[in-house]
Amino acid sequence: MQYVKNLPTYMVQRYHGWKATTYTENKAWYRRLADEGQRPRAMIISCCDSRVHVTSIFGADEGEFFIHRNIANLVPPFTQDGDHHGTSAAIEYAVTALKVAHVVVLGHSNCGGIKGCHDMCAGLAPELEDKSSFVGRWMDIMRPGYDRVSSLPEEDRTRALEKEAVLVSLENLMTFPFVQEAVESGRLSLHGLWNDIGDGSLQQYEAESRSFVAI
Amino acid sequence: MQYVKNLPTYMVQRYHGWKATTYTENKAWYRRLADEGQRPRAMIISCCDSRVHVTSIFGADEGEFFIHRNIANLVPPFTQDGDHHGTSAAIEYAVTALKVAHVVVLGHSNCGGIKGCHDMCAGLAPELEDKSSFVGRWMDIMRPGYDRVSSLPEEDRTRALEKEAVLVSLENLMTFPFVQEAVESGRLSLHGLWNDIGDGSLQQYEAESRSFVAI
Amino acid sequence: MQYVKNLPTYMVQRYHGWKATTYTENKAWYRRLADEGQRPRAMIISCCDSRVHVTSIFGADEGEFFIHRNIANLVPPFTQDGDHHGTSAAIEYAVTALKVAHVVVLGHSNCGGIKGCHDMCAGLAPELEDKSSFVGRWMDIMRPGYDRVSSLPEEDRTRALEKEAVLVSLENLMTFPFVQEAVESGRLSLHGLWNDIGDGSLQQYEAESRSFVAI
Amino acid sequence: MQYVKNLPTYMVQRYHGWKATTYTENKAWYRRLADEGQRPRAMIISCCDSRVHVTSIFGADEGEFFIHRNIANLVPPFTQDGDHHGTSAAIEYAVTALKVAHVVVLGHSNCGGIKGCHDMCAGLAPELEDKSSFVGRWMDIMRPGYDRVSSLPEEDRTRALEKEAVLVSLENLMTFPFVQEAVESGRLSLHGLWNDIGDGSLQQYEAESRSFVAI
Repeated sequence: MQYVKNLPTYMVQRYHGWKATTYTENKAWYRRLADEGQRPRAMIISCCDSRVHVTSIFGADEGEFFIHRNIANLVPPFTQDGDHHGTSAAIEYAVTALKVAHVVVLGHSNCGGIKGCHDMCAGLAPELEDKSSFVGRWMDIMRPGYDRVSSLPEEDRTRALEKEAVLVSLENLMTFPFVQEAVESGRLSLHGLWNDIGDGSLQQYEAESRSFVAI
Repeated sequence: MQYVKNLPTYMVQRYHGWKATTYTENKAWYRRLADEGQRPRAMIISCCDSRVHVTSIFGADEGEFFIHRNIANLVPPFTQDGDHHGTSAAIEYAVTALKVAHVVVLGHSNCGGIKGCHDMCAGLAPELEDKSSFVGRWMDIMRPGYDRVSSLPEEDRTRALEKEAVLVSLENLMTFPFVQEAVESGRLSLHGLWNDIGDGSLQQYEAESRSFVAI
Repeated sequence: MQYVKNLPTYMVQRYHGWKATTYTENKAWYRRLADEGQRPRAMIISCCDSRVHVTSIFGADEGEFFIHRNIANLVPPFTQDGDHHGTSAAIEYAVTALKVAHVVVLGHSNCGGIKGCHDMCAGLAPELEDKSSFVGRWMDIMRPGYDRVSSLPEEDRTRALEKEAVLVSLENLMTFPFVQEAVESGRLSLHGLWNDIGDGSLQQYEAESRSFVAI
Repeated sequence: MQYVKNLPTYMVQRYHGWKATTYTENKAWYRRLADEGQRPRAMIISCCDSRVHVTSIFGADEGEFFIHRNIANLVPPFTQDGDHHGTSAAIEYAVTALKVAHVVVLGHSNCGGIKGCHDMCAGLAPELEDKSSFVGRWMDIMRPGYDRVSSLPEEDRTRALEKEAVLVSLENLMTFPFVQEAVESGRLSLHGLWNDIGDGSLQQYEAESRSFVAI
């Protein structure tokens, strides 16, 4: 594995900075977390996008949130075909092993994945339709969401689709029997959020008004 | 979707705290990130575990790292079957669209997923072998790694397997043609790390010594 | 005092969040509270337990409740020996200087202190009988309460003892001459509560039925 | 116990409000806290004063902080006389049973207990010198602190004494063998804070400069 390189210096330096400050301040707590295991209160499903910081927005400290991040914060529908399903595995582990109290799906503005999904579904990005495109195949999860926004004026569609991604994921979450059971027994609650990167606002899906409302 | 609930108050309060401090201090930067798009320097593949904080360890600010988090920080092998592959999609997007300079696989101690993998492969957790277990199917990616550590004394096996998870993922990364090409042309470098949660130490895989060495 | 360290960063960030939101919203009120002094309506005696939140349960805003918290929400009997009595001092200050209208003793389920008291009195924790055990000596206040529940079936004893802790404290409160006088003149009323942490229910001691009844 | 009354209606109403909102939002988490026990990260020693809200300042959520509150946030010196010592019991439980990572002493401005201590030590409140005064006997813990500030101009003395109360408490904490041992082995860190109620500022004691510095 000669292709594996040493870490760039800037990352090494940041690590040493963390070790000398945050780690040192919290040594006893980290020791306990290692010895006693994690007990997170919530799972958060967020985008890989470098501009979305769950840990920053919610002041998430070590041990608080179980965080899965994938492109466009998507949950695929329940499919028990024996294949590798990273997102489904994370949800299963959070709900059945860690017994988190909340699953939060956090969408965001200016999402590159959603933009690609829009273009693919609108016929503007045929390369994403190709079987060989992992991004295209992944964003295919959102095709039912696209159908719901396709009649909107073009300039509104992408933003609407970002919010649909949150709703489709929440719907898909409920197709997992262990999620449905936990929700129905009151052990788990589901939440949908959308963050505007530019103005820092946060909207949540309100079941009553069936819309996203600013927090 | 009556099952979707409003966000718990403690998270709402934390968000307002972030908005009034971190966001307000960096408003202009967030505005630019939204308008001009992200330009992350590296992709980090890390575990969902609530005790592992990439953003904390590397002082990751908004816009710096494209972060994918799944159980046990695994990369599955390249498989072009047209199915949903969240991890592969994230890698494809990072390498081909965002053109990150580094991909870092960050493993960690006390990993519940790796422990489950060990027990499954050692025949101690037959339920994980079941086709219906998402965690089991996901951890199956690590079976070749288990074979390499199975001859070790039992008390050393899990920790060794945590490090194997980093190596298996690095090997699998190279099965993606676009990764291999970018590595070979010098546009991309791969890195393997393992973090001890309790003592805060960080080890990196060194190609020369073929071992993990403390940073 | 080289052993005194700076506050961990996560607490500093939380403080800044509070300062920028709750404090800023209520600045004028905090200013008045500082200038004119406190005028709390009630004193609450509660447990140190991190799961019992007087301020949350009663929506207690700044300036409303004078809150004393000790292990197992105990009031020791009136003893005028010139020693340091933190609980007695707090009661004296609340009743004679602040002239609160109510003193509320708030017990709770799953109380570690009460569990220790039970084990000590049942002969299962001899180390707590030791003169050197502060927890043991403190829980000794509850020995009369244990005698009243010791004939119950074992599975009912700890919960019964948690409620006895409220009653013993109320009885001990009346041994303070200034409490008794204030109660008899109608200036002060005493209240006994027990909170179930898990189901969120709250029971109060009703003098008429001589039992705890759900609110 | 005919003197025990039912809870005032305003508190009953607040409880029902909490039950219908905060409790309902976090039901699953409260259930887990009850079943699995508390695991607080820090102990906070704060004043009973109704204007000082640890839970508000640090956004303290259920399960996070073990909170002891007494008059003037004092820690008496280690005394193993077999008497009831509520503060010492709370510290013993937090450090030896719960194994918290931090003990924070939080002082504050406009403290009535400290004002009384000042007046007593300055000969202006002879009634507090009386053996029968619980507040006087409790504040006696602070007499060594008064000696250190008595040469200051009168208008500065009370505020200085409020900060001395934090330092005396930190010094007394170290007289407890189990605290000293935990500090020296790196399992526990001690912190001193002083909050200005009126302007919301927070100062911490910095060992290097031997002074309180704004956070």
